[in-house]
Amino acid sequence: MKNKNILGLIFCTILFCSGFLINGNLGLYISLSGFLIVFGGTAAASLTSFKVDQLKIVYRVTKAAYQTKNKKETEIIEILIDLSIKSRIEGILSLQEEENETAILFLRRALGCLVDGYQSEQIRDILNTEMYFFKLRREDSERVLRTIADFFPAFGIIGSVVGLIAMLGGIGDTSIIIKAVPIALTSTLYGIVLSNFFFLPFAANLRARTNHELLLQKIIMEGVIAIDSELNSVILQTKLESFLTPSERDSAMVSYQKIKERFNIESAQED
Amino acid sequence: MKNKNILGLIFCTILFCSGFLINGNLGLYISLSGFLIVFGGTAAASLTSFKVDQLKIVYRVTKAAYQTKNKKETEIIEILIDLSIKSRIEGILSLQEEENETAILFLRRALGCLVDGYQSEQIRDILNTEMYFFKLRREDSERVLRTIADFFPAFGIIGSVVGLIAMLGGIGDTSIIIKAVPIALTSTLYGIVLSNFFFLPFAANLRARTNHELLLQKIIMEGVIAIDSELNSVILQTKLESFLTPSERDSAMVSYQKIKERFNIESAQED
Amino acid sequence: MKNKNILGLIFCTILFCSGFLINGNLGLYISLSGFLIVFGGTAAASLTSFKVDQLKIVYRVTKAAYQTKNKKETEIIEILIDLSIKSRIEGILSLQEEENETAILFLRRALGCLVDGYQSEQIRDILNTEMYFFKLRREDSERVLRTIADFFPAFGIIGSVVGLIAMLGGIGDTSIIIKAVPIALTSTLYGIVLSNFFFLPFAANLRARTNHELLLQKIIMEGVIAIDSELNSVILQTKLESFLTPSERDSAMVSYQKIKERFNIESAQED
Amino acid sequence: MKNKNILGLIFCTILFCSGFLINGNLGLYISLSGFLIVFGGTAAASLTSFKVDQLKIVYRVTKAAYQTKNKKETEIIEILIDLSIKSRIEGILSLQEEENETAILFLRRALGCLVDGYQSEQIRDILNTEMYFFKLRREDSERVLRTIADFFPAFGIIGSVVGLIAMLGGIGDTSIIIKAVPIALTSTLYGIVLSNFFFLPFAANLRARTNHELLLQKIIMEGVIAIDSELNSVILQTKLESFLTPSERDSAMVSYQKIKERFNIESAQED
Amino acid sequence: MKNKNILGLIFCTILFCSGFLINGNLGLYISLSGFLIVFGGTAAASLTSFKVDQLKIVYRVTKAAYQTKNKKETEIIEILIDLSIKSRIEGILSLQEEENETAILFLRRALGCLVDGYQSEQIRDILNTEMYFFKLRREDSERVLRTIADFFPAFGIIGSVVGLIAMLGGIGDTSIIIKAVPIALTSTLYGIVLSNFFFLPFAANLRARTNHELLLQKIIMEGVIAIDSELNSVILQTKLESFLTPSERDSAMVSYQKIKERFNIESAQED
Repeated sequence: MKNKNILGLIFCTILFCSGFLINGNLGLYISLSGFLIVFGGTAAASLTSFKVDQLKIVYRVTKAAYQTKNKKETEIIEILIDLSIKSRIEGILSLQEEENETAILFLRRALGCLVDGYQSEQIRDILNTEMYFFKLRREDSERVLRTIADFFPAFGIIGSVVGLIAMLGGIGDTSIIIKAVPIALTSTLYGIVLSNFFFLPFAANLRARTNHELLLQKIIMEGVIAIDSELNSVILQTKLESFLTPSERDSAMVSYQKIKERFNIESAQED
Repeated sequence: MKNKNILGLIFCTILFCSGFLINGNLGLYISLSGFLIVFGGTAAASLTSFKVDQLKIVYRVTKAAYQTKNKKETEIIEILIDLSIKSRIEGILSLQEEENETAILFLRRALGCLVDGYQSEQIRDILNTEMYFFKLRREDSERVLRTIADFFPAFGIIGSVVGLIAMLGGIGDTSIIIKAVPIALTSTLYGIVLSNFFFLPFAANLRARTNHELLLQKIIMEGVIAIDSELNSVILQTKLESFLTPSERDSAMVSYQKIKERFNIESAQED
Repeated sequence: MKNKNILGLIFCTILFCSGFLINGNLGLYISLSGFLIVFGGTAAASLTSFKVDQLKIVYRVTKAAYQTKNKKETEIIEILIDLSIKSRIEGILSLQEEENETAILFLRRALGCLVDGYQSEQIRDILNTEMYFFKLRREDSERVLRTIADFFPAFGIIGSVVGLIAMLGGIGDTSIIIKAVPIALTSTLYGIVLSNFFFLPFAANLRARTNHELLLQKIIMEGVIAIDSELNSVILQTKLESFLTPSERDSAMVSYQKIKERFNIESAQED
Repeated sequence: MKNKNILGLIFCTILFCSGFLINGNLGLYISLSGFLIVFGGTAAASLTSFKVDQLKIVYRVTKAAYQTKNKKETEIIEILIDLSIKSRIEGILSLQEEENETAILFLRRALGCLVDGYQSEQIRDILNTEMYFFKLRREDSERVLRTIADFFPAFGIIGSVVGLIAMLGGIGDTSIIIKAVPIALTSTLYGIVLSNFFFLPFAANLRARTNHELLLQKIIMEGVIAIDSELNSVILQTKLESFLTPSERDSAMVSYQKIKERFNIESAQED
Repeated sequence: MKNKNILGLIFCTILFCSGFLINGNLGLYISLSGFLIVFGGTAAASLTSFKVDQLKIVYRVTKAAYQTKNKKETEIIEILIDLSIKSRIEGILSLQEEENETAILFLRRALGCLVDGYQSEQIRDILNTEMYFFKLRREDSERVLRTIADFFPAFGIIGSVVGLIAMLGGIGDTSIIIKAVPIALTSTLYGIVLSNFFFLPFAANLRARTNHELLLQKIIMEGVIAIDSELNSVILQTKLESFLTPSERDSAMVSYQKIKERFNIESAQED
């Protein structure tokens, strides 16, 4: 899955870059002044907006979002069912192997509550608090990325305006002026590319990943509470499958035959 | 209904395209560089933003939104009333024929709960969870479409800026430059057309369809719970018709005569 | 009231149009290509976004918003008080005369619940459901209008870009090119005018009207429940006047004299 | 306070206008066509969006926001404490003098409830309804102002496009064309200035004022309920000061000495 | 931490400014007319929008956000644990030293409630009210900053349009006109730089800081209530650590060994 993403990404980036190349001379896209204004300005605005510590957290979270792979919903449900039938070791082993995954840490904390003998209601409280603050922190990180993604095009335009003003300041020759316009435009290019190629996708990715992790955490919470209430594993499975898309579900739907029986509809009529 | 949509769509698209054609030479709208930058860039940004699996789901959901037809509210109410009077087979047959429709799957699941003997309160819980996650998944899909619809014009502008910079890089002749501007503009054209002609309508369509399906699911939930409580079919109909627009309702309004009686207003005064 | 609106509208539209006329030659504003692209494109995008049935509903709702007149809050309160004192026929007659008004239909349905002998709590439930789905349907209609209002300027820009590309494609003469620019701009003009002169005002009007109708429905709900609880008409009036702006209220404020008595402040000190 | 605002406003407006004047010839900023299109168009769009009655209300509310002065939180608290100690007349006198202020009307209504002998719970209900509809009406007014503020720049652009099309229609001389551009731009100028200099500030002011008035109303509600419960005036003051910023509070913070005593920390350690 | 911010900020600002400098002649960026229109206009619009008093508060809050340093979550937790074990003086001393920090004031107020002998439920009520109004006031301040940040680019565009109109008013020479364009652009530059370099970062900073302070206040509230309920300091620590990111936590996770024991999974299988 992740590989398809990377291959697709490389292929599309090559297409994108070849769009630049077939226009020829790459040197035209380089402008030191634009580079300084766009990067210096965005960095300064980001440092005025956020503490260095927060920017480091965002960097770490964004990096982790691309490096570690999330478990699927079905895998988590399998682990929970393994635990509920108390006989298989695979579930617990897979926990130990993937310690740096958020969902696994959450599962371990939930199991810790179980082992420590908390009540169902207390477990729900503790895990809901955990999920709430996890969501708040992630929303903070997403907002940082979106704010930076907004600064880039703004400073791109600043760079272009500065370029225009500076270059055209003392010149009255139309043809030279029009030649200078594209050079000034490089700043705008930097700003829009950096925003749309990097920071907006990072923010969208973080959002999608957070939503997915919150779904996993909800499944874990319901599963652990069900284990605590000693529900049998069939009911547990039915319960947890409500969180899945219909196509991912194992359990068969009730048959039409049964529905007809319940509503006293004679089968003969069917023909 | 669906046919009117398709005919109208074809007619309007022909109008739209003829707006291009009467301006003449179609070759002017083709720009390889613009094509590579807009498509390559948007695809790369989408792959950085979302997992391939999620993009596949969005493709499938969008396709289904145009291919399968939703039942109307009144049809669903008819099926529920059929079931409640336990004598007609048409309702259940129509279920079997349209298995791939979301509302029918939901109805079958709701009936499954009924057959399995769950309590009203449990049925409401299970179906509400189902509806909640259905809504979450659809909102995720809509957000993917809107994000892509935002990337297209941005990369359209990138393509135009690149075109301008590249083509005007070494030239000082005003007339050649102005001739080049329209060529650079094709990228912007690609971006805006793809966003407004395809992705924004897809997102709006998905939103409208999701709202409609949630309404159907709410009707089904209330209907199945009413069947479970053995309400008679007249009360059931009155209950379910609250979900309809006044013009779709069958049941007559209370007469003014009755209102007057209730409030002791003499009919004589009326003349 | 409605008349002032229409007179003002006609006057302002004449001012607006004379702004076009004093610039002379109206033929300059006509562009077949622009017309086809803006209308064809927006219509195609709207048909991809929404079902024909929904567009018909929006058309009907928008038309009704300008043709039928809403009762004022004070009129509704009067009718409710008429009903509560059970002696006057004017209230009920005015109901019969204005059947196609939403608030009147809602009042009749509410009175139907009363006549059929439902409990206060049931009446509140039924009417709240009714109001909730009324609000949902109206928000759907408003979103359709806003989506179309967003498509128009986008296709206006598409038309202008197409015009520029087509017309300037093979020409190298600056003066001819600059002459062509305004012709291309007509598409943009069509898009912005249609959006701001028609669809955004339609959406704003629908919103304001919906808010007003929901307020009327809330007054009716509280009034009918109060009638059901056999409250006397003075209390009913006081209760319903909380929904009005202070200036529309009949009931006198408590006098300062009374406040002073309550707080044992001697009148002598006043001088 | 209000005076500082007016002086500052006059000074800044002079600065702003002198920015126009030092560029010379004011006649250049006058364009009848632009004036007609921007004002006629915005007025027509506003009349299509809103009823004349609603526009009158917005005019009255906006005017009142600049003419009447709101009481400060501390003044309201003082009046409430005056009332609670039942001995001073100043509070009640100040009520009579400033009848047209919203907060005072609300206070009088609240006192009316008290005098009429309603229960605490009923007073809370009545005043909460009052506040809820006050907020709804103000949000409606703010939305009207923001909608108009959005129409102005849109019609400014329409005016400029019309100007460009009309003036350049039949001319092929570049220098004349470029001279004409600024004349067309006056419409844009009208639109942006009217939106940003008047209507957006009006909306922001209304919002800030509404928030402040809701805070005052909340203080009054809590205060009157406390008076009804016969709380003594020290507790009342402590209670009401939670609504103030720390710097506006009278009551001293608990001393560190007391905290240390409570936690058994020996004072000796302090040195 | 704060130092890294300042160093980074200085470095990036130098980069940003050098982007201006390498384009040469700084005199080109100076335009008195643009300066008057952008500053005068924005100041006038701000004074029409907000009261001088509110602008002063925003100035004070923004200044404090950069001058005072917030305690970290772990420091606050340490102070609370110090207090709960009633033996160390460091906690209380650090309170006295940093009086002007919001979180410390809140802690002191919370301890005041404790010392005055309020019930847990009352303490929660008082502190929640305090937090609610703190949040409202900060949101007001952030909205002021964002409104000003929106005015700046708008008046920048006004300045540029005025510049264009004024300078090109009477001239027909293309080359002079194009030379004048950059001068008019300085206004736009002022507007975008002031908005993106100052006011948007100020607003983002205020938002991040407010979120952080609300988290601290929530920790303090839970801690003080736990102290009031005489919980032991181990439970207190576990409770408060739910608010931290996993990496900041002290307490060890439950061991896999324990989980296996609880679920009867034989250790032998592990090899």
